[in-house]
Amino acid sequence: MSIPNHAQEAQDRYFMMLAIQQAKQGLYTTRPNPAVGCVIVRAESVVGQGFHPKAGQPHAEVFALQDAGASAVGGTAYVTLEPCSHTGRTPPCALGLIDAGIKRVVIAGLDPNPQVAGRGVKLLEDAGIEVTVGILTDQAEALNRGFLKAMRTQMPYVRLKIATSLDGRTAMASGESKWITSAQAREDVQKLRALSGAIITGSETIIADDPQLNVRSTQLCVSADQVPTPKVVVLDRRQRLQYDPKSNYQLCRQSEVLYWREDDLVKLLKRLVSDHQCYDVLVEAGAGVAGSFLKQQLVDELIVYQAPCLLGIKARPMVEFSPLSLAQQLRLDICAHEKIGPDLKLTLQPL
Amino acid sequence: MSIPNHAQEAQDRYFMMLAIQQAKQGLYTTRPNPAVGCVIVRAESVVGQGFHPKAGQPHAEVFALQDAGASAVGGTAYVTLEPCSHTGRTPPCALGLIDAGIKRVVIAGLDPNPQVAGRGVKLLEDAGIEVTVGILTDQAEALNRGFLKAMRTQMPYVRLKIATSLDGRTAMASGESKWITSAQAREDVQKLRALSGAIITGSETIIADDPQLNVRSTQLCVSADQVPTPKVVVLDRRQRLQYDPKSNYQLCRQSEVLYWREDDLVKLLKRLVSDHQCYDVLVEAGAGVAGSFLKQQLVDELIVYQAPCLLGIKARPMVEFSPLSLAQQLRLDICAHEKIGPDLKLTLQPL
Repeated sequence: MSIPNHAQEAQDRYFMMLAIQQAKQGLYTTRPNPAVGCVIVRAESVVGQGFHPKAGQPHAEVFALQDAGASAVGGTAYVTLEPCSHTGRTPPCALGLIDAGIKRVVIAGLDPNPQVAGRGVKLLEDAGIEVTVGILTDQAEALNRGFLKAMRTQMPYVRLKIATSLDGRTAMASGESKWITSAQAREDVQKLRALSGAIITGSETIIADDPQLNVRSTQLCVSADQVPTPKVVVLDRRQRLQYDPKSNYQLCRQSEVLYWREDDLVKLLKRLVSDHQCYDVLVEAGAGVAGSFLKQQLVDELIVYQAPCLLGIKARPMVEFSPLSLAQQLRLDICAHEKIGPDLKLTLQPL
Repeated sequence: MSIPNHAQEAQDRYFMMLAIQQAKQGLYTTRPNPAVGCVIVRAESVVGQGFHPKAGQPHAEVFALQDAGASAVGGTAYVTLEPCSHTGRTPPCALGLIDAGIKRVVIAGLDPNPQVAGRGVKLLEDAGIEVTVGILTDQAEALNRGFLKAMRTQMPYVRLKIATSLDGRTAMASGESKWITSAQAREDVQKLRALSGAIITGSETIIADDPQLNVRSTQLCVSADQVPTPKVVVLDRRQRLQYDPKSNYQLCRQSEVLYWREDDLVKLLKRLVSDHQCYDVLVEAGAGVAGSFLKQQLVDELIVYQAPCLLGIKARPMVEFSPLSLAQQLRLDICAHEKIGPDLKLTLQPL
């Protein structure tokens, strides 16, 4: 493993950027696998590229090597994640790169999957291939937050989504809440759902809103039926809901919904990783559930769709949370802010 | 007055942009006069530029013509506001341009001041000068929102500033409120104050926070002592405060503070224009005063400094306002959003 020099690094960053663009094409379809892209470069020209499209199908390196054909010999492979070293549903990609005559491999970041975890690099280096690790690591890791966190900690990456007014309200006191955020903001939520292995909601939300919580967007760059259906989890300690093919609630008519009757959210999250391979979890629920996740520090990312309106002091709050002093406030960091239609989308991380 | 063609317009926009940059140098110091900039161009080169620095001092055109000297003859003058036609503290600028031998005058927007209002253009045209009006009008008018609104309607341009948490709270239930927004956000408020002819606050705010409400920033590109001191108005229907050189409250020790004992905010705003030449008004007060201005539709611009923190459901709300249904909500339009230190600054206009 060599440390890149400055001249080489500029070139490496450029080709890694192309590999990341490849990876993005699989963003919504590879679950539970990570989205990975690969670009093969020879004499400073791209001679092959590919991405992993779906679990069970070949990895990015296979498509890129196929695309390059004989031009791969003596070339450099740029991969957004360490090539695998184990035989899963497909043969190890590290061997594929070696067999194709690749001379150098540039990797954005190591794969923390215990079945890989540096073994891919070792295989390559043992075959005399020069390996560089650490080019555009942050950008590449941003594609696979859930997979990487789950491999490292056995906990999923949890996104909490809240739609609110400028004064931090989600509905009138009466419960009236239609159309607070715009159609564009609601369309954007489809992307969050499509990224998620599981969507957690509360029984309150089902009873109040009867949501579908499915992926139905036409703006994902892939058709919605290509996106693995997120597992729906209903937090229902009071056992108010259950599977019933004749239920009034859409979700309760679906047999795959998981009803969580316990208090322990950590246990639920661990189980989603271990039993269901759900690495990205989206929480779409009311103020009570949002407060529970935030207070227990289980939120990795808070996404707020803020409509530019004031609903007033009697309207319902966005998070059930009652600190007694400023010292107990919950502080976050604003990672991104953008307008989505007339609304503002804020992406924050709890500090 | 001619209508610009496309080829000429591109050039006109470029030089008008330079004139606007000139005008900006007087942004915080010209009150109650508008900020105006002027650029003199001859053979496609800038030969003179200037801006109005302060009421009582010469207008932008005078400085630009001085700067150009004999090169002004046959040139084009770009002015961000219609040149004046009346003798005030200085002689009419339209005559100055005529006397200097200017052949063409390009104006961003007409001056609605009843003493000018097209008469500047007429003077120029009567002297055989070609006049073009309407280049970068919006950008130029953005420099003088208060002046233009007051000249057109005899009402000031009202900015309402609120510092709030992500969940729309301004302080804990106990009143504890220090450091919700950052030092950078508080520094940015100094710019709003420096733009303002008057700052309106409430007696509640004085009793609770004892604010200074003065301009003390070092980041305005001009020293704070060059900025005309904004007039402070205290809304005090209950007559709880008055001038007292020995008062516990800093503002009450200042003799120039205006105590407004009446209910009628429209009357106050009109009086600030007619009696005090305060055309830009900043409201910095609590949720009650904010609610009154918003409910009476007296706010032109709402500036929200939003700290990325959650203060909880018992904390104090940002605006006292209690609509009964979604139909009664107050809707706004997001004009701008930017990060100021760790906080978000939103500029909104009520719809």
